[in-house]
Amino acid sequence: MELTRCVEAIRRSGAETIGIQYPAGLKTRAVEIARNIEKETSLSVILSANPSFGACDVQQMPVDLVVHIGHAPIPDLHYKDVFFYDNALPPPENLVFLSKALPLPGKRVGLLTTTQFRGWVPAVKSYLEDRGYQVFIGKSGGRIAYEGQLLGCDYSAAKMIMDKVDCFLYVGSGNFHPLAIAMLTPKPVVVADFERGEARRLDEEKDRAIRQRHGMITAAESAQTFGIVVSTKLGQHRMELAKDLKSIAIEHGKEAHIFIMDYVSPETLEGYRVDAWVNTACPRIVMEDSILYKKPMLTPQEFEIVLGKRDWKDYELDEIKT
Amino acid sequence: MELTRCVEAIRRSGAETIGIQYPAGLKTRAVEIARNIEKETSLSVILSANPSFGACDVQQMPVDLVVHIGHAPIPDLHYKDVFFYDNALPPPENLVFLSKALPLPGKRVGLLTTTQFRGWVPAVKSYLEDRGYQVFIGKSGGRIAYEGQLLGCDYSAAKMIMDKVDCFLYVGSGNFHPLAIAMLTPKPVVVADFERGEARRLDEEKDRAIRQRHGMITAAESAQTFGIVVSTKLGQHRMELAKDLKSIAIEHGKEAHIFIMDYVSPETLEGYRVDAWVNTACPRIVMEDSILYKKPMLTPQEFEIVLGKRDWKDYELDEIKT
Repeated sequence: MELTRCVEAIRRSGAETIGIQYPAGLKTRAVEIARNIEKETSLSVILSANPSFGACDVQQMPVDLVVHIGHAPIPDLHYKDVFFYDNALPPPENLVFLSKALPLPGKRVGLLTTTQFRGWVPAVKSYLEDRGYQVFIGKSGGRIAYEGQLLGCDYSAAKMIMDKVDCFLYVGSGNFHPLAIAMLTPKPVVVADFERGEARRLDEEKDRAIRQRHGMITAAESAQTFGIVVSTKLGQHRMELAKDLKSIAIEHGKEAHIFIMDYVSPETLEGYRVDAWVNTACPRIVMEDSILYKKPMLTPQEFEIVLGKRDWKDYELDEIKT
Repeated sequence: MELTRCVEAIRRSGAETIGIQYPAGLKTRAVEIARNIEKETSLSVILSANPSFGACDVQQMPVDLVVHIGHAPIPDLHYKDVFFYDNALPPPENLVFLSKALPLPGKRVGLLTTTQFRGWVPAVKSYLEDRGYQVFIGKSGGRIAYEGQLLGCDYSAAKMIMDKVDCFLYVGSGNFHPLAIAMLTPKPVVVADFERGEARRLDEEKDRAIRQRHGMITAAESAQTFGIVVSTKLGQHRMELAKDLKSIAIEHGKEAHIFIMDYVSPETLEGYRVDAWVNTACPRIVMEDSILYKKPMLTPQEFEIVLGKRDWKDYELDEIKT
């Protein structure tokens, strides 16, 4: 891992003690990173072994400066003494994998990606324009650091251009982020997957995801006691929303209790005598992992559908507004 | 669960928002407790779903008063707006299970227990005195709230009477606490186990535990890179000790890195490129769980033995001095 920019930032900061955070995928390289930073700076480094799931999840450490590796900062959050070190992948030598995605189902294309592929955006845009497409890219802002970037709690980069485009092209890996876009728009979403060297549409996955959410809502309809999950993580803390949901539950003759925790997991929530969960922490917990939980796990909007306060036709994805 | 004293304390405090913490064993009753407190006080209650392992592990919650259930407070820690609700078990109708422990190997007996059995101490003392024994009970203080109480991080209740007694009688359940006493004294330790209705000596368990610690130290002798574990939990945080250990490691030609985290678990520590761990968090992590970790897991004192700074004959249990 190239640490020059990181070492320079540490030197500039004047910090004497440094904390390092990183996603779990970097655990195997954490000691090497600490060793190299200590060698380059002669400073004392402390590693955070709490798993870090995003820039929403920056932990307080007893150090002068936290180096947070692997996530783009969330502009709307107030960080103190944090240096974000998220290198963009350089664009690949050729973009031939994109040809798998062509022809796209429409000439006006919304281009989407995640933070690590942000360096590819200009090249992909040119590639598409050279082939006669008109490319739209959502602006940064809110929780979004870079244009065209999707987060599991902020789809504004897609929503703000939704009405202007015929289809979306997601450049990156995995289905999680583009699947959400497929759920919130009737327009086709094409994934250009660099890692697998393939392109795919998400129509089937979208149908399956919608059926799953529908099933979860139906399963929660007979619930009497709800557990409302609140995370203490810096950028996931929605206590006011949780309190509102508890009040609404009571108004509708249900019982609700607020559960606060750092790390939300099936194991953490096991054993409680509730009939269903409502999650106000990271929306990804519901959209990606709800089947791992023993009780139905809902978004706040889905909870409103259960209570009869919202129609299924007004289904909305959960996003965090800071 | 009898909550009268708890409800009274909440009323007296004038708090408007209440947080509740409890050991994992009370998860199945947490909703019932919240429901009853809300009914009795008409206040809003929030449940902490972070597992709580002791009075060393009191979490900050966004409430006016935290009700911490199931652990005795640690006198040496500074708590803010915490009410400890740890009911003592009333003594059983008869103490006939103690007869299984008789005759004890000596007339001068050190009486030990854990916080939940503290209410039994006077009755057990009388029972023994009636049968001609002289009973010694260590005083409270430091991390110990009640006389005769053992904690996995403070054995002072045994150490302060060790020279005066012929043997120890531990009244309670499980082997964890009395086994530590067996390791730190050559005097016999007898467990009177109320739950199982039996008594046992711990000679075999003691031999096995000492062999295990010896094996762990031997396994760590070839280690070059050490990970030093620090917990952020209020009463487990020993960063200064960790920094000292890191310096000592470097002086002895070893590499060491400090890892800070809330919850120490095999999963949390998996994947790091270290050869062995040194734990400065709860000593129980080493004494009870070290075989669950993929790398040798040592106490600070064991680490000193590995480095050649301490002799095996000067083996000492790890305790936390606040």
